[in-house]
Amino acid sequence: MSHLLLALDFGGTKLSAALLEEGQTSWRDLRRTFSPPGAGRDYDVHTMLEMANGLLQSRNPDAIGVSFGGPVDFQSGTVRLSHHVPGWEDTPLSRLFRQALGAPVAVDNDANVAALGEQRFGAGRGFQHMLYVTVSTGVGGGWILDGQPWRGAQGMAGEIGHTVVDPQGPRCLCGSRGCVERLASGPYMAQDAQQRLVQTPDQGAILRRLCAGDLQAITAKLLSEAAVAGDPLAQEILDRGAQALGTGIGNAANLINPQRVVLGGGVTKAGDRWWRLVRETATAVALPEVYVEIVPAQFADDAPLWGAVALAQDLLKVQAV
Amino acid sequence: MSHLLLALDFGGTKLSAALLEEGQTSWRDLRRTFSPPGAGRDYDVHTMLEMANGLLQSRNPDAIGVSFGGPVDFQSGTVRLSHHVPGWEDTPLSRLFRQALGAPVAVDNDANVAALGEQRFGAGRGFQHMLYVTVSTGVGGGWILDGQPWRGAQGMAGEIGHTVVDPQGPRCLCGSRGCVERLASGPYMAQDAQQRLVQTPDQGAILRRLCAGDLQAITAKLLSEAAVAGDPLAQEILDRGAQALGTGIGNAANLINPQRVVLGGGVTKAGDRWWRLVRETATAVALPEVYVEIVPAQFADDAPLWGAVALAQDLLKVQAV
Repeated sequence: MSHLLLALDFGGTKLSAALLEEGQTSWRDLRRTFSPPGAGRDYDVHTMLEMANGLLQSRNPDAIGVSFGGPVDFQSGTVRLSHHVPGWEDTPLSRLFRQALGAPVAVDNDANVAALGEQRFGAGRGFQHMLYVTVSTGVGGGWILDGQPWRGAQGMAGEIGHTVVDPQGPRCLCGSRGCVERLASGPYMAQDAQQRLVQTPDQGAILRRLCAGDLQAITAKLLSEAAVAGDPLAQEILDRGAQALGTGIGNAANLINPQRVVLGGGVTKAGDRWWRLVRETATAVALPEVYVEIVPAQFADDAPLWGAVALAQDLLKVQAV
Repeated sequence: MSHLLLALDFGGTKLSAALLEEGQTSWRDLRRTFSPPGAGRDYDVHTMLEMANGLLQSRNPDAIGVSFGGPVDFQSGTVRLSHHVPGWEDTPLSRLFRQALGAPVAVDNDANVAALGEQRFGAGRGFQHMLYVTVSTGVGGGWILDGQPWRGAQGMAGEIGHTVVDPQGPRCLCGSRGCVERLASGPYMAQDAQQRLVQTPDQGAILRRLCAGDLQAITAKLLSEAAVAGDPLAQEILDRGAQALGTGIGNAANLINPQRVVLGGGVTKAGDRWWRLVRETATAVALPEVYVEIVPAQFADDAPLWGAVALAQDLLKVQAV
């Protein structure tokens, strides 16, 4: 009889739960809901348990994997905090769900879990050593080394977004200048475009038209559209982001020499020129002997759910030993 | 009866061989010799075997560890090439020494082996996850993750020297601009000082006096002396190197989150200000949650020999299984 696996994803604004029979490649059932603004930990936990119970219909899962959008102590299954949702400080999430649902639980942060999802079921299949990078509202990363997440001494590994690639660059909230996230993430690129439009009234005509003069409406997506339509200002900001990301990836390749780099997140939809620049820059920064292959993620928002399946599978392996 | 371990180190210009009884912390016997300029692989292999036989005096070692100053395929024990000594291309060094000396042999490149030496016997004792960086004629590095060298997919991991920290910086032989080695290694800092002295005749008075007008005599050591004596030009170049190295280490900490960073090599003798700048910069670049402890290496030139002892020990463990 195949095992029943429950995969849960606590995103910043979205809760997802899915049920899978081990060995299957599509969900038996999946539910998603958005946390209303101002919802806190208790709301999220309660809603997730309701969704899980709705999926399970009185059956017991054999194992539960959980992806959490914030720092987690993997060993104890404790959430350290959430940067998006109040009240999560030091929550023993693993214990809570084990007691409520009667099955072993593994919890890890979303970057590690998404990396594991891509490695087991997505664009990293067949590779034992890979780096997963998501370029979206932030730039996050997760390592798979020897087929398992590499979490680092304090669970902080994978922070490629805050590696510095231009010490003279603009200041990031992290405190550094010119880190990858400051130059390559969607909101920061949009912010830079807004500033440039204010400062240089003769530039960015296409971008101005696309946002209908509402600078707050500028997003990475709009920048890409403006660039494709021939706006030099939008192109310049996207190019700078692609080069920063490529430098960060080339540096990571020189340091760890993975087999493959998998890129996900909304900004990766920026088009062929963006991809070419990321690859060219990473290849130029990496030593000639260091092979750097960069491929698009297979899963969009579902990578953490698939990684949660892998976490649950690994729990069954541990039990079987 | 304790095991007899043979440790060999093929440096760029220096050959070292040492004999140790397992569990001891000092050499039973050690020999060193310099390769004459123009010596090739066959000379080095022959000389090393003579030194080894001299140490062994007809006894058989139980295991042999070898450090090699160039890229090595660890699995097969094959040297890929040497950047310093001609003729090493695709040399099956492990097989060669196993046949000549009648014991199992493990070979790895000097950065990995030195990292292992510091972790098992030196400044990394008690730490399972560390980065070793040597700042000397080049800037090299080696990772220990989970107590073992992390070599990467193609054995190229640890190349912190060629991570880019200033894309507008000067060009390195590796092809990139502003990599750590270009800014922080001894010969490149000396070269930059020479150029500055030529270009700005009113600067660097102390440095000029210390090298007695012979710009070719400038080394990192002389730069340190000039800086201590109050030369602003020498200080500026050393500071830039320390900041580049600190940025590279901070980036590596964000990516992999090791417990400790061990710094060796001649340039680390540059004094308190250099150390303070390296530490300050690395701490500023690392995220607040990422702890970065940087300590001096315990061994100077002997780190690869001690790492070779660790390689030999691990061979005995494999045999015992």
